Amino acid sequence: MATIQDVAKHAQVGVGTVSRVLSGKGYVKAETRQRVQASIEALNYTPNEMARNLFFQKSGIVALIVPEVSHPFFAQFVNAAEMALCEKGYQTMICNTYYEQNYEQRYLEMLKQRRVDGIIFGAHTVLDISQYENIHLPIVALDRDLGENIPRVSVDHRAGGRMAAEELIRSGCRNVLQFVGSKMNTEVSTPANVRHDVFEETMKQHGIACRSVCVKWPTADISYYQTTASRLLEDYPDLDGIFATDLMSMAVLQSALLHRKKIPEDLKLITYDGTDIIGLTFPRITAIVQPIERLAGEAVQLVVDLIHGKSVENKEVKLQAVLRPGDTTMGG
Amino acid sequence: MATIQDVAKHAQVGVGTVSRVLSGKGYVKAETRQRVQASIEALNYTPNEMARNLFFQKSGIVALIVPEVSHPFFAQFVNAAEMALCEKGYQTMICNTYYEQNYEQRYLEMLKQRRVDGIIFGAHTVLDISQYENIHLPIVALDRDLGENIPRVSVDHRAGGRMAAEELIRSGCRNVLQFVGSKMNTEVSTPANVRHDVFEETMKQHGIACRSVCVKWPTADISYYQTTASRLLEDYPDLDGIFATDLMSMAVLQSALLHRKKIPEDLKLITYDGTDIIGLTFPRITAIVQPIERLAGEAVQLVVDLIHGKSVENKEVKLQAVLRPGDTTMGG
Repeated sequence: MATIQDVAKHAQVGVGTVSRVLSGKGYVKAETRQRVQASIEALNYTPNEMARNLFFQKSGIVALIVPEVSHPFFAQFVNAAEMALCEKGYQTMICNTYYEQNYEQRYLEMLKQRRVDGIIFGAHTVLDISQYENIHLPIVALDRDLGENIPRVSVDHRAGGRMAAEELIRSGCRNVLQFVGSKMNTEVSTPANVRHDVFEETMKQHGIACRSVCVKWPTADISYYQTTASRLLEDYPDLDGIFATDLMSMAVLQSALLHRKKIPEDLKLITYDGTDIIGLTFPRITAIVQPIERLAGEAVQLVVDLIHGKSVENKEVKLQAVLRPGDTTMGG
Repeated sequence: MATIQDVAKHAQVGVGTVSRVLSGKGYVKAETRQRVQASIEALNYTPNEMARNLFFQKSGIVALIVPEVSHPFFAQFVNAAEMALCEKGYQTMICNTYYEQNYEQRYLEMLKQRRVDGIIFGAHTVLDISQYENIHLPIVALDRDLGENIPRVSVDHRAGGRMAAEELIRSGCRNVLQFVGSKMNTEVSTPANVRHDVFEETMKQHGIACRSVCVKWPTADISYYQTTASRLLEDYPDLDGIFATDLMSMAVLQSALLHRKKIPEDLKLITYDGTDIIGLTFPRITAIVQPIERLAGEAVQLVVDLIHGKSVENKEVKLQAVLRPGDTTMGG
């Protein structure tokens, strides 16, 4: 297989010139550029990512910063992102923040020192946004607002929240509750919270009682969900509809069935995220499904574009969630 | 905070001498060693892992090679390993093999080039074992036999398989089935397969019919489990007990309830792994629970010991699984 050195020799230029042609950065005379391109074609040279990384002194590593990789949403996201990165010649570093400021700070320092080529940031931050802007590394935010300089991949949560509300309304709910991620002591807002505002508004428009209960933001701590779900069903025995994320939805379903509630007759349930594993419950939980694999693909494409110095014109990628009907609502 | 340079200056020696004292490698005169140690105490110097890594030109990265991080067992393992590595000053790289030889080969090449400090290997390999031995990097195997030079962390699957069998026997099963990971075209055996041999033996000893059905080795593909579980219940309507891993167990439970089977009266079910998420089903599935967090902790300790050049005397760490009674058996 031809190397960048072979191309340079064939075109009678330096390796630096070939690299400038490949990267599109820096000045190369038109005539020289054509000669290099001809050599690339003649030798059937594929500028593979790894060779390129070695040449440009890149680490070839992209870091994914997430709250907890054992949470199903992030497990599935990390899985898909790793596959997409691998296909582009990058290796994947994971950093679980566990919501702890000291972990996050420590990761930032480590990332700066180790010089990863880029970061996909999907955790809540408890640090000042400027700390991220000061890293001077390509960063893509997953479902976070990290300031206008940092591109963002997210789902249209406004539409998602509305779909969830409408499904419960069609199912005849009159007294609903939603679990809302608690707003932490942070400047960073996540667009995901928008779905709760829309959910509440939509319910109010239809004259339906709607209670919002704060819970910890994504954690994989199962017993926390079980305790919360159980207490809730005892505190509010008259609820007829619940909107929650996947792990909480599973806990609510388990708890409701333990309390001998009939699903969906006594209680309707709709879940948000719709990770793969939620497909294995019985009854099957109606879900607003986020396109996690596509989110990962778009985030990876953006971060690789940034690493290659491309201008990322479309600073915000917004994908659509879809309703997957299950047995816990009767909107169909 | 004091640095290694401060210690060297204080003790009036070179930085190299301090590092030899810290690492315990190389010759240092007793008198000098005492002076360095006195300086370390006087300055309250903590030889933190990161400073050490920088000094010794380590990458500070450990790679986890797993089949798929979205599979609950590996999600939980990676989560725990990442936390343990972070506490020791290491960053975590993940590599999903997806059972593909080309991915595995590619990762090996990448790992060699990038010079990670060590590897925890938890995937099936389709390569020759010697390829791993030739990496000349600290490797720890999770539940794999990669040759006698590579230390191993695993669970006592013999005891685990026996516990599962005995629980179904106590529950009155007469006609059971277990799902067995297919033996792939590989030289590498996993001790996890032992549980199936023990399960079958124990059933035979009690005169109980036992069928073993091959399935794909851990995959996070939900629809595969659903299709397999559904077909199986149709093919063998007389089964009264099933032994499976977590995702398959969830699929079996879902399918059995769809088929209007009464659990546990018509069908008993016991699951292996007992990942956190399995705790959220209804009815709750009786589980043989692997100590995943402790497996991760032991694997991390071993790989860090190897990185520090310690001789790892106890080449095999074997932990015990425990029975967590649920609603799908009645052995209690």
